[in-house]
Amino acid sequence: MHDDAALRKRAERVIPGGMYGHMSVYRKMPAGYPQYFHRADGCRLWDVDGNEYIDFMCAFGPMIAGYGNARIAAAAEAQRDLLDIANGPPPVLVDLAERFVRQVSHADWAIFAKNGNDATTVCNMVARARSEKRNILVAAGAYHGAQPWANRMSRGTPEQDHALFPTYTYNDAGSLTAAAAAVSGDLAGIVVSAFRHDAGYHQELPDPAFARTARAICDAEGAALILDDVRAGLRLSLDASWSLLGVQPDLSAWGKAIANGEPLSAILGSEPYRDAAAAIFVTGSFWYQGAPLAAAVETLDLLSEVDAPALLERLGVLFRDGLAEQAIRYGHAIRQSGPPQMPTVMFEDDPNADKGKAFCVHALHHGVYLHPWHNMFLSTAHTEADIEQALAATAKAFQALG
Amino acid sequence: MHDDAALRKRAERVIPGGMYGHMSVYRKMPAGYPQYFHRADGCRLWDVDGNEYIDFMCAFGPMIAGYGNARIAAAAEAQRDLLDIANGPPPVLVDLAERFVRQVSHADWAIFAKNGNDATTVCNMVARARSEKRNILVAAGAYHGAQPWANRMSRGTPEQDHALFPTYTYNDAGSLTAAAAAVSGDLAGIVVSAFRHDAGYHQELPDPAFARTARAICDAEGAALILDDVRAGLRLSLDASWSLLGVQPDLSAWGKAIANGEPLSAILGSEPYRDAAAAIFVTGSFWYQGAPLAAAVETLDLLSEVDAPALLERLGVLFRDGLAEQAIRYGHAIRQSGPPQMPTVMFEDDPNADKGKAFCVHALHHGVYLHPWHNMFLSTAHTEADIEQALAATAKAFQALG
Repeated sequence: MHDDAALRKRAERVIPGGMYGHMSVYRKMPAGYPQYFHRADGCRLWDVDGNEYIDFMCAFGPMIAGYGNARIAAAAEAQRDLLDIANGPPPVLVDLAERFVRQVSHADWAIFAKNGNDATTVCNMVARARSEKRNILVAAGAYHGAQPWANRMSRGTPEQDHALFPTYTYNDAGSLTAAAAAVSGDLAGIVVSAFRHDAGYHQELPDPAFARTARAICDAEGAALILDDVRAGLRLSLDASWSLLGVQPDLSAWGKAIANGEPLSAILGSEPYRDAAAAIFVTGSFWYQGAPLAAAVETLDLLSEVDAPALLERLGVLFRDGLAEQAIRYGHAIRQSGPPQMPTVMFEDDPNADKGKAFCVHALHHGVYLHPWHNMFLSTAHTEADIEQALAATAKAFQALG
Repeated sequence: MHDDAALRKRAERVIPGGMYGHMSVYRKMPAGYPQYFHRADGCRLWDVDGNEYIDFMCAFGPMIAGYGNARIAAAAEAQRDLLDIANGPPPVLVDLAERFVRQVSHADWAIFAKNGNDATTVCNMVARARSEKRNILVAAGAYHGAQPWANRMSRGTPEQDHALFPTYTYNDAGSLTAAAAAVSGDLAGIVVSAFRHDAGYHQELPDPAFARTARAICDAEGAALILDDVRAGLRLSLDASWSLLGVQPDLSAWGKAIANGEPLSAILGSEPYRDAAAAIFVTGSFWYQGAPLAAAVETLDLLSEVDAPALLERLGVLFRDGLAEQAIRYGHAIRQSGPPQMPTVMFEDDPNADKGKAFCVHALHHGVYLHPWHNMFLSTAHTEADIEQALAATAKAFQALG
């Protein structure tokens, strides 16, 4: 039998710092969070100590249609039984490329990869190959992956890795204009997140004027507008997320939810970028794997059939309204930010998230897995009954906060 | 029904250049190679037109124990049914870390990722974090992935991406010494491949004196010796490949075969690098996925039980001896290079591989999938009977060459 404490003790011997990356509870998470999980089904998780949670993290995004969704799992399994990996892809790669290009307005072609960060990196390469320019603007503090070019927060990344990635401030058209002007003539692209979803901060939806400025600068400079839709993709819209603003990117990066947890990312691009995309060399051992491609076709179909963005929005509003009412009832000042489909709940005047952490630990004890300083995620496996059950738990958590 | 020509026509509309990366037949492969595959089983592949092949590429390495290996697939499936992805890993992540650390002499800890290139990148970050130095030496022409730092052959990668990656010539101790001297005091690491397996060239096994020089320079400079065992790992040795030379790396990168085709890579490191590995931030949405971890535990067990390196060596020598005899019999000058487990067969005086391509297309027609200019791969699913059957086909191919 496993228990979390015993597993941590074993892991501390063979894994640096006990656990790496965003799933490490050693990094900033309060005592009480489980590190290891035993079982997952629908919107529920069981940790290795047998505790059951209604999950509001969805594996940090990949799960969008329920853990172990039977229909998607069956599609993946059928492909896996026939052929998962070989010396070339199975036909489903073409099916998915056609399916994705049909669904996403700006897209005329697709490339598939594994990590979301593979997708953002390939977008940069395509943008640079077409323009033969070098600089790619990124928003200060935005997350586009942990590869050195995208990673200013880690040790082990020399400043040279970031020299060609000048920063601007998200939603600040003036700062974007200034950053672009500083490298005018040598601007290959501007990377924008679907919205400002920096961890640890209140979220900001994109200002339409900012989005139009980004588009206009790219048009004027011959640079690519690169939408990083890895985190938000398919939850806000079945099209690229900035379609909601009427602004189309040239290139978009997708990952996380596109295959409901099977490992897959995608680069979508518009016609003018096709030749550049054909001219670069990018690849990976597992990029042609069939099962995730088959899972993605089924995921896209399923999400379209239920109109997932609208469904998740209704669930998110229900959750948000309930939390807002509870916060008032129990006398806590909270701020809810970001789109309802990806709720972020933080306390006012809580700079180290101490209150948020205490609240989330109480919620955990009552069977709800929330995150104190990262946007959360809803799925089509959540029902109104699940949200109501979760709200019964958060009421107790607010009450316990005192 | 699918056929290769129809799929290519569809793909040319929605995939840049028809197909990307190392699995693109549009890149350098002669007419006659199938792009799309329908089914895989053991050491056999069926393309979408129904042609059957004994496969000598093993999906470019990942398949080491047979396509659809029942035992490994069952382990992956059992984990997938319980939990594949969640808000933290399943316990099998710890099992695999312990298993791998026990198996690989230099390793005291492990980190898991998706692409082989994730693993080589993380090694660089750990080396730089520990030493607080910047330069990483790489062999000219060596392949460590398609991310910009490792990718000098693609458009879209500014020269700045390679500024901190000076090159040396593999197996040339003098060139390595000179390259290290040029950045002495600012050397974070030296990346070495298990052997020189550059595509398009005759392969070279590592010269032990070169390996010892690399180790000595790293010791003198406080730099990390980084072994890229992504391609060769588990085929030459169940330990790190340079164990065969008595030279231990500080960090090693693994991928491809470690989970028999399930998407997984690994970074293994020695004790002095543990703190640096704990201090960096690296992650990916799918890095904690359970099914590939479970597949890897089973793969490592299975390969140990059958002593895979020795088994593959016997099969490889059988194939090599047969080809050598046939080449003489039919009057063709071939050069076979690299370790027998990863055969490379090229013709002498064949700078554009025209003769090699013609030979391989003949072999395809007779039911054997070979590669004209890339190292090939054997698996434990190949039997002596499969090798004999393949040799019967290559005899016809040599004969057809005239």
